[in-house]
Amino acid sequence: MYTIGVDLGGTNIAIGICDEKLNLIKKGSVPTGAERAGEEIIKDMAALAKRLLDEAGISIDEVDYAGIASPGSINTKDGVVEFAGNLPFKNFPIRDIFKKYLPVERVYVANDANAAALGEALAGSAKGADSCVMVTLGTGVGGGIIINGRIFAGGLNSGGAEIGHIVLVHGGRQCTCGRRGCWEAYSSATALTQMTREKMTELSIKGIPSLLFKHAEAEGKVSARTAFSAMKEGDAFGKELVDEYIAYLANGITNMINIFQPEVLIIGGGVCNEREDLTTPLKKLVDTEQFSRNNPEKTKIVIATLGNDAGIIGAAGLGR
Amino acid sequence: MYTIGVDLGGTNIAIGICDEKLNLIKKGSVPTGAERAGEEIIKDMAALAKRLLDEAGISIDEVDYAGIASPGSINTKDGVVEFAGNLPFKNFPIRDIFKKYLPVERVYVANDANAAALGEALAGSAKGADSCVMVTLGTGVGGGIIINGRIFAGGLNSGGAEIGHIVLVHGGRQCTCGRRGCWEAYSSATALTQMTREKMTELSIKGIPSLLFKHAEAEGKVSARTAFSAMKEGDAFGKELVDEYIAYLANGITNMINIFQPEVLIIGGGVCNEREDLTTPLKKLVDTEQFSRNNPEKTKIVIATLGNDAGIIGAAGLGR
Repeated sequence: MYTIGVDLGGTNIAIGICDEKLNLIKKGSVPTGAERAGEEIIKDMAALAKRLLDEAGISIDEVDYAGIASPGSINTKDGVVEFAGNLPFKNFPIRDIFKKYLPVERVYVANDANAAALGEALAGSAKGADSCVMVTLGTGVGGGIIINGRIFAGGLNSGGAEIGHIVLVHGGRQCTCGRRGCWEAYSSATALTQMTREKMTELSIKGIPSLLFKHAEAEGKVSARTAFSAMKEGDAFGKELVDEYIAYLANGITNMINIFQPEVLIIGGGVCNEREDLTTPLKKLVDTEQFSRNNPEKTKIVIATLGNDAGIIGAAGLGR
Repeated sequence: MYTIGVDLGGTNIAIGICDEKLNLIKKGSVPTGAERAGEEIIKDMAALAKRLLDEAGISIDEVDYAGIASPGSINTKDGVVEFAGNLPFKNFPIRDIFKKYLPVERVYVANDANAAALGEALAGSAKGADSCVMVTLGTGVGGGIIINGRIFAGGLNSGGAEIGHIVLVHGGRQCTCGRRGCWEAYSSATALTQMTREKMTELSIKGIPSLLFKHAEAEGKVSARTAFSAMKEGDAFGKELVDEYIAYLANGITNMINIFQPEVLIIGGGVCNEREDLTTPLKKLVDTEQFSRNNPEKTKIVIATLGNDAGIIGAAGLGR
């Protein structure tokens, strides 16, 4: 039997057909066209799934179930997208509408960050782990929590696991969620970019030279990469920024470990491209800080391996 | 059938016999004598359980199982206390030793804070709730997490749910766990006492009068009550301290809600005696701060109702 995994994004709908071991047999995508009515989007989603099945020579009877990963607040029990920022969904019964266009008996829906964490737990960097927490360092700090091999999305409204929105700095930087000092305001790629920009403004006013300027110029903008690139060439301000960023990140990750003691903590998102420059000092700090530092078994910290396929594969694993 | 619930503390062993509805039929306690060998303590524990069964006219055959709530790190699978601060236990097989002295087939062991949360969820302030988080404001900030009606103690080592040890103030006050800025260092009764003491020192140096002094004198010490008592009589510094304390507490509780979205968030521990003076402003802040403030269902914030019996009742409910 096969399963269909759908990763619905604001820009593209990506779909994969997986075998029983969650290997991606076939994969494709179409533009979401998020400006259209919700049902039009789902129609295209079902059509793409059908086309991929055809191309792979798999009949619909060989499909065990389909899973849909969507942004936003998901009522997983009823398969309803209650609200999604950049999609035209409000209390949208995505499961039932999808079934209208594709005759599969079982369709599961989950939040995309949660599905990505499940993907990594089932077939990626945390394969075989019973419990894991995935932290995605991108525009924001996203998260997914896997307990006993299943997504934990919170007790009420499947609205929990908002791990980017735990306050790390009481009264600190303004967060998009309305609070001050959220983890997201310190550990997202956006936050590192902002910290870098602030430091560069300060240096610029004081007329102090730094390789930060060279790297920002080369890239055409200040990004989360700027500080790391400057540090790698020996720039003291680059190192200062990276050290500060990693100190916040270690603080937030230690919080997650003290709460969940997951077997694996997965780091995903763009900032991961810094690899060991990020993880080596990070692991050192977490190791000193965590409450259970003397426990026999410790949380492994790893970098996500499935990249953009994590959502598809997690969605394809939702029915397990 | 009946169940035995044991709450093992550093000072006393408290035991209750419960019926199937977790009503306490009979209860008693003996001194722990924590300076003795572990097995001696367990022998007394079993003897007390036997005596209470006898006094209640219940035979051992009518006992379904026993539950033991112990401080420290518990390996719940094997019934072993791996480590407990103020008890002579290190990798101590408490379950098997207890069975040696009391012939019950099923014996469960859990951490005492977790058991208290389960007690409140099964028979106290969160009765009927499927998910809840209990925050105990005492010497430290303790916690218990209930997911799907069961204790969640973390993936590895049952060593999670250390909710007092999530950093709320990056680089802030020194915590007993070795980190800086933990929630415990701001929201425990100890923290409020310390904050009050610091304020009084400052006022004393500046020669500024405050009712804080009157209340500390009346009680014979500065305590977590001092600031609340002064505030209630209109003292501005008392109010300032309470406001600050509640701002930290609201921050930490909102963190818990953003992660867990529990049906009920229970507040326990000594500081709860302030009742509405604590909860009214707290609820207002949490309501503004939480990520899912527009969700249809919201976490109810309640004060624990079982008091010192929460551990016994939770222990008696461990086998469910």
